[in-house]
Amino acid sequence: MGADLKALPATLPDYALRAQQSLSAEAWAYFDGGAGDESTQQRNVAAWARWGLRPRVLQDLRAGHTRVTLLGREIPIPLIVAPMAYQAWAHADAERGMAMAAASQQCGFVLSQHSTTPLQPVASLIRKEPARGPLWMQLANGADRACLLEVADQAAQAGYEALVLSVDAPVQGSRDRVRRLGAHPPSQLMTPHWRPAAPASTGLCGGTLESALRWDDLSWLQERIRLPLLLKGITHPLDARQAVRLNVAGLVLSNHGGRVLDTQPATAECLPELAEALQGDAALLVDGGIRRGTDVFKALALGAQAVLIGRPCLWGLASHGAMGAAHVLRLLRDEFEMALALCGCRSPADIRREHVRWLGQLDEPS
Amino acid sequence: MGADLKALPATLPDYALRAQQSLSAEAWAYFDGGAGDESTQQRNVAAWARWGLRPRVLQDLRAGHTRVTLLGREIPIPLIVAPMAYQAWAHADAERGMAMAAASQQCGFVLSQHSTTPLQPVASLIRKEPARGPLWMQLANGADRACLLEVADQAAQAGYEALVLSVDAPVQGSRDRVRRLGAHPPSQLMTPHWRPAAPASTGLCGGTLESALRWDDLSWLQERIRLPLLLKGITHPLDARQAVRLNVAGLVLSNHGGRVLDTQPATAECLPELAEALQGDAALLVDGGIRRGTDVFKALALGAQAVLIGRPCLWGLASHGAMGAAHVLRLLRDEFEMALALCGCRSPADIRREHVRWLGQLDEPS
Amino acid sequence: MGADLKALPATLPDYALRAQQSLSAEAWAYFDGGAGDESTQQRNVAAWARWGLRPRVLQDLRAGHTRVTLLGREIPIPLIVAPMAYQAWAHADAERGMAMAAASQQCGFVLSQHSTTPLQPVASLIRKEPARGPLWMQLANGADRACLLEVADQAAQAGYEALVLSVDAPVQGSRDRVRRLGAHPPSQLMTPHWRPAAPASTGLCGGTLESALRWDDLSWLQERIRLPLLLKGITHPLDARQAVRLNVAGLVLSNHGGRVLDTQPATAECLPELAEALQGDAALLVDGGIRRGTDVFKALALGAQAVLIGRPCLWGLASHGAMGAAHVLRLLRDEFEMALALCGCRSPADIRREHVRWLGQLDEPS
Amino acid sequence: MGADLKALPATLPDYALRAQQSLSAEAWAYFDGGAGDESTQQRNVAAWARWGLRPRVLQDLRAGHTRVTLLGREIPIPLIVAPMAYQAWAHADAERGMAMAAASQQCGFVLSQHSTTPLQPVASLIRKEPARGPLWMQLANGADRACLLEVADQAAQAGYEALVLSVDAPVQGSRDRVRRLGAHPPSQLMTPHWRPAAPASTGLCGGTLESALRWDDLSWLQERIRLPLLLKGITHPLDARQAVRLNVAGLVLSNHGGRVLDTQPATAECLPELAEALQGDAALLVDGGIRRGTDVFKALALGAQAVLIGRPCLWGLASHGAMGAAHVLRLLRDEFEMALALCGCRSPADIRREHVRWLGQLDEPS
Repeated sequence: MGADLKALPATLPDYALRAQQSLSAEAWAYFDGGAGDESTQQRNVAAWARWGLRPRVLQDLRAGHTRVTLLGREIPIPLIVAPMAYQAWAHADAERGMAMAAASQQCGFVLSQHSTTPLQPVASLIRKEPARGPLWMQLANGADRACLLEVADQAAQAGYEALVLSVDAPVQGSRDRVRRLGAHPPSQLMTPHWRPAAPASTGLCGGTLESALRWDDLSWLQERIRLPLLLKGITHPLDARQAVRLNVAGLVLSNHGGRVLDTQPATAECLPELAEALQGDAALLVDGGIRRGTDVFKALALGAQAVLIGRPCLWGLASHGAMGAAHVLRLLRDEFEMALALCGCRSPADIRREHVRWLGQLDEPS
Repeated sequence: MGADLKALPATLPDYALRAQQSLSAEAWAYFDGGAGDESTQQRNVAAWARWGLRPRVLQDLRAGHTRVTLLGREIPIPLIVAPMAYQAWAHADAERGMAMAAASQQCGFVLSQHSTTPLQPVASLIRKEPARGPLWMQLANGADRACLLEVADQAAQAGYEALVLSVDAPVQGSRDRVRRLGAHPPSQLMTPHWRPAAPASTGLCGGTLESALRWDDLSWLQERIRLPLLLKGITHPLDARQAVRLNVAGLVLSNHGGRVLDTQPATAECLPELAEALQGDAALLVDGGIRRGTDVFKALALGAQAVLIGRPCLWGLASHGAMGAAHVLRLLRDEFEMALALCGCRSPADIRREHVRWLGQLDEPS
Repeated sequence: MGADLKALPATLPDYALRAQQSLSAEAWAYFDGGAGDESTQQRNVAAWARWGLRPRVLQDLRAGHTRVTLLGREIPIPLIVAPMAYQAWAHADAERGMAMAAASQQCGFVLSQHSTTPLQPVASLIRKEPARGPLWMQLANGADRACLLEVADQAAQAGYEALVLSVDAPVQGSRDRVRRLGAHPPSQLMTPHWRPAAPASTGLCGGTLESALRWDDLSWLQERIRLPLLLKGITHPLDARQAVRLNVAGLVLSNHGGRVLDTQPATAECLPELAEALQGDAALLVDGGIRRGTDVFKALALGAQAVLIGRPCLWGLASHGAMGAAHVLRLLRDEFEMALALCGCRSPADIRREHVRWLGQLDEPS
Repeated sequence: MGADLKALPATLPDYALRAQQSLSAEAWAYFDGGAGDESTQQRNVAAWARWGLRPRVLQDLRAGHTRVTLLGREIPIPLIVAPMAYQAWAHADAERGMAMAAASQQCGFVLSQHSTTPLQPVASLIRKEPARGPLWMQLANGADRACLLEVADQAAQAGYEALVLSVDAPVQGSRDRVRRLGAHPPSQLMTPHWRPAAPASTGLCGGTLESALRWDDLSWLQERIRLPLLLKGITHPLDARQAVRLNVAGLVLSNHGGRVLDTQPATAECLPELAEALQGDAALLVDGGIRRGTDVFKALALGAQAVLIGRPCLWGLASHGAMGAAHVLRLLRDEFEMALALCGCRSPADIRREHVRWLGQLDEPS
């Protein structure tokens, strides 16, 4: 990638601009838009910046590194590409490209159940990479139950190491940007692992909720899958405790990037409360609004073991294919290393809650 | 409405734009403008977004619905069109169209005492609709006392089910946008149910306040009307308790959409305090700044039994007549159903105070 | 004024725009500009809006009025035109016009020591008006001591009823807008009552502070004047107590409209603390950022007996001469009457601290 | 300088504009840009304005002055030009011009280890000025250890009075504006006192941190230098106490002007905590965002003995050479004198903690 680096955008916001230029208005609305007034989407980003860093100086930084332990395995860096649907709509490199980008930067990767690429070839492409991060498969609430089991089974056979069940979107939210444009993925895009549950004739939201997954279904699912299960989309401490009682392997604190239910607090605001509720009884990851290596540092300081990165990787993929996604991850890696060093931490294990402090808001400078 | 839905605006803000284009500058200033610097008008909207949602996941949502009980009657959905004056200035469909829009969406309707349509035909049009919401008549402080009694009597005969006395505007406020344009309703518009009290020669505001209604007058009024009485425009807990002592059927927490006295707190800020003061001794409704189905959800979480919707319905009426008003209500309905489901509530009865939390302007961590 | 009212601007901000158009860039910078980044100037305005009104409904408003008692005299309305320098630079009507405007609206008037009109004819013009408000004369720190005594003596003879000593500007502040343009009053403008103290050769700010008035000088001054003395520019509770010990008749809480020392709190923020410190031992007035009748209401709720209005009167004078200044005061009067009525107060004596509540800041609505 | 004063910019923001016009886009990005989203850079400026001034009136200001005591020496004014790299890239007057500007305004001067002028001639130029401020030499973390000792030795011989070791930048931060433009200082610019430590082949950030200075190295350095040592870049109270235990002469509270690690709190926010931790056991200086004489006043009220000024001096140098830098300092001096007088302080020794109060973003009443 070295020779081409100079031609690539220099920052994540630059990638966002390039992605918007590369995509149709419909695709941009679909990938970038959020629910309602997008206040949660914006708050997710803003909240990380409100956690202030409290660096220590003149620390011993020799032999520093970025390794962390997650689900019992040491991984090179606590960065994972979030599950995102319809990547072939963003770029022909699609999920294959995104997975290779993740592996090239030693980051993890979660394939969406709405993937436009079958799960087997994606796994084949990166499974053997020596220094890659976790390789996980997403399941979505709203899928046909038999479909869930089939996908879980195929994922286990293909080498995926865990399943990530999204629990926060039993119905789609009201996504105004998408609705204004009627921005639906092109019909020729196949999602080979997705089969929705049949709607009922009564009930809320046109009957789609009659078959939504319930806590009861979790045990049913857990008995039938071989891989560790994580729940993605937990924000409430009581839900976190309930998940622990059901022996899930981990949780992803997430509000779906603000794409489903608007006016929720930012994940960066919920993280301390959720970490306290969890008390280490399951792995804790977080996503939503992470745009800087300092945000990754803060997530770890507030109790997460790793973070998921969504839109920024999509921006990279949309504008420059796999190379763009890889470069986005590289920028985050570099910044995370600098954040570690500048805060006086030799490795993630040195990060303490005391390294961050919530800052009040100030007026805009004149 | 199905075939035409694609041609309609997709969101409430889009309706506002279309309404502004459809109306003369004077009519827009009259319908959209507020008092003073319009800070309360804006704050009403902003405050709902500051109540953060705290969703629960994986709940049992089967056989969900939106029904609530109000004044002893089960209604399909807790949405009521607020009383608004001079609707014929907005669109030829006028109050008839607005009432039909409400009934078509199973929402309630309150006719303004400044209606440009007589109350009898409006009632006839929708009274027999099987799934309609409440049908109420507004009375306004500032009307001639005999006129109040006449209207109350006619309303009861015509099938209205309650009277809503506006108590927060004994004088008009200083509405700068209106004053700049001299934006008065056209003189040919008739308001058949309105006859103002004669001003006195002394006292504040040109003598108009000498005959303003007082707490003493409430008993006088209650003895002479047959319908349940609600007071609209209460914001102070002590006024709420006083109303309870006088056995009113309900209160509408309202600052008149910010149209009368600027720099009041938003109704979304006052709601918890008022609900606590009321302790269920009368029905509690709220209006002001509700623009999303999530706002409706929050109003119920904070203690209201239903909400009134004003300007958005007017936007729909002004731009697309009755169909526009109906579509606005439909958008709110759909969003409210999604909010219920995404927060983990099978019906409004499942909504709890714990489903919302006040969010700082990113000032305080949660 | 009746026939011309329609042609006049409808609001105070409209007057500001017209004044800017009427004045040279230099004069506008001089009259409108503040110290430093003008943050205190802006905060003065913003802070009043942050005091929220808590109206009561259905109160008895019969025989309402706006009268208050100030320095032992009943005045028609608690509004006084603040002392402002160089009014002839704003409009040929100058101080005569401003004084007539005040009297026509039953408001008080304070003549600046930097008046461009002699004090005697100004007093003659309005002294006999039956319903006028207070007529006071300002003295300025920085004047030659003999000059102060001369002016005090002339004012007493001419019928002025009190002296207002400005204590907050022993030196001018850094007024950037003025400095950028070199915006000094035209040299042909005479200020017949102003003679500066001679600067010393050493000390801060080019020696001008060696002769600045000190607390010691107050007794000297009080022994030599016949009129009641008010101090203008007090913001600190300890200074207020010191003034009380010296038996001043009253205080004006003021930061000089943000024109001298930037980054002070708004006067609306300091008012409760100062009223508490004063405990009624002297009259308390306030100025700074009052732009609405509701602001006047709030000032009284927070402990002031009356308010001074500065820039808005100047805007009126600059754009429409005496008639403009009178109309500005009329707009404030009308709004104040409405605020009284809408908050449920029959007269200023009914205003309570409980009628206002500090409101947090909300996001701007979308 | 008198005759030319009228042609010079009137304010510091005006100097910033002129500097941007005078410099290439690359140089402007280098000198003006900060780390990440530049939120700390902006917060530094904004935070000073949030400290509200609480002036006292009618104080005795005779024989006032601006002198303070720093490291045991009385200096004319508590203003010092901060160490800034590559000044020849900003203007041909370079470090010689900046040093003369400082001396002409009786301010102190710190030469950067990345100076483009040798340290000896700079010192010769101003060392003998009778009323100049402190003359100090900066050392930078990241330099070769032998180089540090050489520079320390040369500085002592040339007449520098103290060494200022920057400890907050063992690696450069992610400076996006610089990265976008590839804005590196021209290769022909020599930095005669800079020799970086050789990077290692392993560890964080490409191995550059293996040789970063550690607390252990401080004793090693202190044993080998003759001049008093200050640490620049301390923000944490525990680091401050550690520095005191090692007997440093002083600390500079600094976040490197927001150029290294973004989303730190503003120095104006950290100052009270750091002053309390230090308890006077070492001199305390502060930099970051100081743009007004009132900011200098506030820094002293919050516990600093003096302040460092960075970017504004650079703006002056870039746009008008030495004369511009001198004028910038003169503007700050004049404002500081006015702030002293208007707050009622005869000299810096009169400044008390009570002269300032943190102001909410109009969130909380005072």
